[in-house]
Amino acid sequence: MTEPQLTTLAACTGTAMRLAKDESLKIVNIHGTQVVDCWAFNADDLEEWMSMPHTRNACRKLTPAIGESFVTTLRRSILTLDEDTSPGVHDTLIPCCDAARYKELGCEGHANCADNMAYGLKELGIDPPPPPAPLNIFMNIPVGPTGRLEIVPPVCEPGDYVVLRAEMDCIIALSACPHDIFPVNGAAATPRDVAYAVYPAWVGGAD
Amino acid sequence: MTEPQLTTLAACTGTAMRLAKDESLKIVNIHGTQVVDCWAFNADDLEEWMSMPHTRNACRKLTPAIGESFVTTLRRSILTLDEDTSPGVHDTLIPCCDAARYKELGCEGHANCADNMAYGLKELGIDPPPPPAPLNIFMNIPVGPTGRLEIVPPVCEPGDYVVLRAEMDCIIALSACPHDIFPVNGAAATPRDVAYAVYPAWVGGAD
Repeated sequence: MTEPQLTTLAACTGTAMRLAKDESLKIVNIHGTQVVDCWAFNADDLEEWMSMPHTRNACRKLTPAIGESFVTTLRRSILTLDEDTSPGVHDTLIPCCDAARYKELGCEGHANCADNMAYGLKELGIDPPPPPAPLNIFMNIPVGPTGRLEIVPPVCEPGDYVVLRAEMDCIIALSACPHDIFPVNGAAATPRDVAYAVYPAWVGGAD
Repeated sequence: MTEPQLTTLAACTGTAMRLAKDESLKIVNIHGTQVVDCWAFNADDLEEWMSMPHTRNACRKLTPAIGESFVTTLRRSILTLDEDTSPGVHDTLIPCCDAARYKELGCEGHANCADNMAYGLKELGIDPPPPPAPLNIFMNIPVGPTGRLEIVPPVCEPGDYVVLRAEMDCIIALSACPHDIFPVNGAAATPRDVAYAVYPAWVGGAD
């Protein structure tokens, strides 16, 4: 199978795409420091979406392992984590950054993941809903023994990637998180480009 | 101040109520084994609700401590945990049980917290939205060092209670969780009655 061309998602920006059942999305952490917020919606019913609470319940973990699926608000598989070359540290606990968050932080008007999601969906002609809790790919939020949460840099190497396979026709939105205050996007708190590619459904063959 | 009368919330049922700013809601775990799912909505805008992801981010913990607030999707305080006589073990990670969950578990038609929330809101004349991720009061979901989640009995004594004070006019929905398969509601997996009372705003005085 020819490797699909990678598309750059520029630092601080968002995009969205349609993914047919069995197609896969590869998301590459080019610099190893960048978090990517990810949402998935059932393409046939945008009121059914990838849900972090339902996913945690389904896999009995904070984050699914390779081979496990993210599920929707209706408890149906929507994306399966087929590959992950990173240490597998992703976050399902923290909401996306948004205008209200940056206002709290004294940075009114800051680029944010909620607006990036909305931008991506609008480009597809979709009226954006309020953002569900995202899958924060590569985001590192250690949970202490007393339930204390820390916000620390990703533990990835440059080039680490995940591959998510669609279990239904879905709409994916991605945001290269623009956060530059806490070390969400690396110790330098500098948002960076990431890259992605869509792979066709695997049609079998030599293995 | 006269102690308000406690109202029983029968096992497996739900209710909802309006809570004015500064009024408080006491929720009593009569038997020490029962989980209560709790939702809060801004009374003036039902599209703004108490959000577990935003709350975890605000308090930097899985669950707020006494004196800390639950916040909304717009990052505004909606309920403050004023008192908690239990060991403080509550859950913000797991979705409410619903028809889809019991179908997965082979118990189609089982009473569930989503229906209980909807029932309570309808009784107030409110068209119920899909249930946001609830605050699962008294629910015990230990997070292991690798992020593994367990579902184990509450650690309360009979009579333990929490008091939540409204930071804005809000609509509260409660469900005495009907789960009787896993030990969510005690080792006997037997749903029980709980009780609640609404306290007027504290008007000061001798302390």
